Amino acid sequence: MTTIDRASLIPALKNVATRLRIDSLRSTSEAGSGHPTTCCSMADFTAALFFAEMRFDPKDPHNTDADRLVLSKGHAAPILYAAWAEAGAFDRAELMNLRKIDSDLEGHPTPRLPFVDVATGSLGQGICAAIGTALNARRIKSDYRTYVILGDGESAEGSVWEAADVGAIDGLDTICGITDVNGLGQSRATMWGHDMEALAGRWRAFGWHAIVIDGHDMGAILDALAEARRTKGRPTMILARTIKGKGVSFVEGKDGWHGKAFKKGEELDRALSELEKQFVPAPPGVNLPASIPKPAARPRGVDTPKPMAPPAYKLGEEIATREAYGVALAKLGEADARVVALDADVKNSTFSDKFEKVFPERFYENFIAEQVMVGAAMGLAARGAIPFPSTFACFLSRACDFIRMAAISNVGIKMAGSHAGVSIGEDGPSQMALEDLAMCRAEPNITVVYPCDGVSAEKLVGLMAYHPGPAYMRTSRPKTPVIYKNDETFTIGGLKVLRESASDAATVVGAGVTVFEALKAYDTLKAQGTNIRVIDLYSVQPVDKAGLIAAGKATGGVIITVEDHYAAGGIGDAVAEAVAEAGLTVKRIAVREIPRSGKPEELLDRFGISASHIVDAVVSSRQSSASSRQSPVGSR
Amino acid sequence: MTTIDRASLIPALKNVATRLRIDSLRSTSEAGSGHPTTCCSMADFTAALFFAEMRFDPKDPHNTDADRLVLSKGHAAPILYAAWAEAGAFDRAELMNLRKIDSDLEGHPTPRLPFVDVATGSLGQGICAAIGTALNARRIKSDYRTYVILGDGESAEGSVWEAADVGAIDGLDTICGITDVNGLGQSRATMWGHDMEALAGRWRAFGWHAIVIDGHDMGAILDALAEARRTKGRPTMILARTIKGKGVSFVEGKDGWHGKAFKKGEELDRALSELEKQFVPAPPGVNLPASIPKPAARPRGVDTPKPMAPPAYKLGEEIATREAYGVALAKLGEADARVVALDADVKNSTFSDKFEKVFPERFYENFIAEQVMVGAAMGLAARGAIPFPSTFACFLSRACDFIRMAAISNVGIKMAGSHAGVSIGEDGPSQMALEDLAMCRAEPNITVVYPCDGVSAEKLVGLMAYHPGPAYMRTSRPKTPVIYKNDETFTIGGLKVLRESASDAATVVGAGVTVFEALKAYDTLKAQGTNIRVIDLYSVQPVDKAGLIAAGKATGGVIITVEDHYAAGGIGDAVAEAVAEAGLTVKRIAVREIPRSGKPEELLDRFGISASHIVDAVVSSRQSSASSRQSPVGSR
Repeated sequence: MTTIDRASLIPALKNVATRLRIDSLRSTSEAGSGHPTTCCSMADFTAALFFAEMRFDPKDPHNTDADRLVLSKGHAAPILYAAWAEAGAFDRAELMNLRKIDSDLEGHPTPRLPFVDVATGSLGQGICAAIGTALNARRIKSDYRTYVILGDGESAEGSVWEAADVGAIDGLDTICGITDVNGLGQSRATMWGHDMEALAGRWRAFGWHAIVIDGHDMGAILDALAEARRTKGRPTMILARTIKGKGVSFVEGKDGWHGKAFKKGEELDRALSELEKQFVPAPPGVNLPASIPKPAARPRGVDTPKPMAPPAYKLGEEIATREAYGVALAKLGEADARVVALDADVKNSTFSDKFEKVFPERFYENFIAEQVMVGAAMGLAARGAIPFPSTFACFLSRACDFIRMAAISNVGIKMAGSHAGVSIGEDGPSQMALEDLAMCRAEPNITVVYPCDGVSAEKLVGLMAYHPGPAYMRTSRPKTPVIYKNDETFTIGGLKVLRESASDAATVVGAGVTVFEALKAYDTLKAQGTNIRVIDLYSVQPVDKAGLIAAGKATGGVIITVEDHYAAGGIGDAVAEAVAEAGLTVKRIAVREIPRSGKPEELLDRFGISASHIVDAVVSSRQSSASSRQSPVGSR
Repeated sequence: MTTIDRASLIPALKNVATRLRIDSLRSTSEAGSGHPTTCCSMADFTAALFFAEMRFDPKDPHNTDADRLVLSKGHAAPILYAAWAEAGAFDRAELMNLRKIDSDLEGHPTPRLPFVDVATGSLGQGICAAIGTALNARRIKSDYRTYVILGDGESAEGSVWEAADVGAIDGLDTICGITDVNGLGQSRATMWGHDMEALAGRWRAFGWHAIVIDGHDMGAILDALAEARRTKGRPTMILARTIKGKGVSFVEGKDGWHGKAFKKGEELDRALSELEKQFVPAPPGVNLPASIPKPAARPRGVDTPKPMAPPAYKLGEEIATREAYGVALAKLGEADARVVALDADVKNSTFSDKFEKVFPERFYENFIAEQVMVGAAMGLAARGAIPFPSTFACFLSRACDFIRMAAISNVGIKMAGSHAGVSIGEDGPSQMALEDLAMCRAEPNITVVYPCDGVSAEKLVGLMAYHPGPAYMRTSRPKTPVIYKNDETFTIGGLKVLRESASDAATVVGAGVTVFEALKAYDTLKAQGTNIRVIDLYSVQPVDKAGLIAAGKATGGVIITVEDHYAAGGIGDAVAEAVAEAGLTVKRIAVREIPRSGKPEELLDRFGISASHIVDAVVSSRQSSASSRQSPVGSR
């Protein structure tokens, strides 16, 4: 909080707000696109936040103890940039490069900018990330506060109310939200228009302290921020009644101006000339940027991670990879204090409860709310934690858009999805993840690992924790035998050749439960006199391209993939792209229709991914290769 | 509502509830898994719903005017099945086949059963589908009511509150929700436990009529259902305070019993013996199943669809496919009264507003809440509408889990996602869909189409509407020239060869905006003396396998795909799998890193999918094929 006296502060802030409006208009008009009117509605409280409330160093936005600001309504990026420029983070002239390909001042904020923790622009996500930055303050015992600016239209997103629940139940009183209630969405008025009490009632019902103000009354803004700061035990939401386009009379409160830049020339000039007239006389000697309170350079012990305790399994011992995940997570938590876990009311199925039992203060229960779980993990990761959010793999799809934004943010969330595939059995298709590999592989920077046994699960938890960027581990429900020794080494981008000979007729690539189907097929075929090469593709993204090509070439070009996943976007596609440049093709064995309830082994067989289907594929590949030797090429 | 007098009704209903509890225990114990305790908490109001409230015909659950029941807490499937059996829909003995592979009584309900509209089991979705079935009643002018049973833990899902908003703003007073507040989630107590007013306050703040009752007091249940029926102008939520495991003393209200079947033998016998003792003397002659009020066999005019008006474009005319989508949707709406549209506050970007302008009563605005938009579409589709939900393609990922459940339900939702790919330009990565094809292709039964011009967009809207099951159309932001004549024919599973000669050096497969990059590359290469074959893959799932193989074989086995999408799960993978069996491989040109803001043409080039990259790929494929002719095979 600033120490400038209120009589001097208010006119100075008003002038900042006017300048932010001008900069928002000028930069968007220069870009030829953008959202100036939604910047105008929030200009007054943005000025107050930056120059009378927040503690930060414009030259060191990453400071551990600096207050955080999340612009959940990411389309208002121009005013965020204008405010940081006004604070001195960079030269104001740079604002004129808004939205240009070589500027980091993008259409919506991304962490390419040092003052942005997570990318926003998909509405309803920023407040979830704010939960994470607030949890992080508690984790590192810092008193920094988290501010988050929402749109009113945005408040229709269910994820906002997931965050509301978690913020209240966790008592996150360091969060101060401000909703910019300008009453207008993109295509029409919002559900609530300017019914401030309708919105305030919701926040109160969800356990927040809610304050309704005129968002253009600078005194009221300062009072509300002070009240939020005084409010303990629960977060505060300030509902600021504002006018979209405020300050430019011919667009104020008008529909049809969402996401439209003012046309350079007469239209822009008219708007700017109105705004220029709104500067008020301000007392001399007030230097707002210089008055911003800086975070103390608080010395902190560095958390040096220790080596993680090695796995302690016996070969052949049966353990589900989901359980081994939990064992590993607890060990990792012991080795590294930055590790935290989040779950969505299935901790006793994902086995994240093994971590909770040892580190209850680093475990965050999000109840059945996967969006805020992943969103909070994004905020935690952006501030230095190593968060492992876990749930059933199929329910991570609930947070698909958050995962997309985590990829854009390139934050190190380490997701774990259990109960993959039809091998879960009787619970049926609603609980089976059969598209999770496709979802995570689609993002070019998400690492995807998929252990088949306890040892690989443990080792891969350790690897994914420190591999840069987002990562995803897929685990299985059934128990599987341990096939690796406790000192086996794994790498991101590696694979294991489990069976090989000089006379292999085919390479069979499995992962997770299908590794064991491939091994069964190996035994069956071996008994019939046919050798196959069996690969455990525990690293699904990236894949070991050279290893796959070498195996394929050594086995007559026959590569068969088998996966407990639908055919598109999974292991088959990953392997196929990897080997394509060597001219090799892949026969994909995968689930190809909507499955149903049944016993795991029945389902593996019914849906075509059991050992017998692998045997059939190998045999038929031999027959077709024999027949192609007999018939002229190209005759089909 | 039943006509049986209350004094006779209440003991009879109590005995039904006891029987439903017994059946839930017996069937789950027989299956060896399932959720008996969560069935026990809801047994009393389930008995009341089926035998004193709902209007339906057990032998004809699909009747147009029958009340709908959505079990949003899908894990309570055993009691749903028990109630339908009790009503006479099927033989009670069938309950003992619960969760077996050849029974449709799956672990969670799916529409394989005639009395299930949409699959549930992913929490927070059923209430969104209920919004759709209620909107459908309004659409067809039926007075049927929609009942939806939620869990309390489930109420943490944001999608529940999206549905709450839409239900209130649309005044859907035909919806009566019942939340089974048993206070216990899977892994621990819920956020609220038995704080009934905390939950009721939320529903009231969201505009619902909320009634708090003791969920084991049959009189209170009947009164609440009657009050809900009398409540006009807004939906009602009954919050029923219940005890998990009610009726079985040794599990009542105990943590640790979620999702556990009673062990056959002593444990089950003890529970059943307690329940058997709970039967009460009931007046003779009460036949509850026979007393269920049947929906009238109301004759309705059949909506015979007319042919859709043909496109009316000029070759070379520029129109964005998203706009052509809107034009087509309005025409389709004219041709078929079953067509409805839903949007999420971007109707002026997706152009669904063209439909709204003509058919405002068949347009449903969901504000910025994509989950309820898709969920409501599921409910509408299940009841005979042809719903087109639309938003930016990237924001459909917000509803990814709903799309997954729509695939499991195999309901005919017809999704449209605009603003695909980097070609949107300056708004930046948060607004670019680069994984939507992967998301939709992952589901084996989702049809995926991707038009490149106005004519194909219009024709494909007409085709997707009547193709069975879910479908997705991807549209683009930039204007593109019309390349097809208005009478051109398209098919689901087809493609168009746009350029071919007898001497093509490569097949280039594009779709959407990359078709035009491929055509530019064609011109450039032609000028250099090289011919290529250019394919518009407007049907991405299914693909025309034979057509692709034929083209690949005719062009020296060189196939290059180019897509405004990430590399995994999109067009490259679709084509690669299709041609693999012919021994052909694919060179994939796609976006391979997180993009940024910039001009569309700059981004196409920067992220590697412009004409010049296609030219380079064709040239390099010719060089490598020339070099492979000179060097021995396998030397690399």
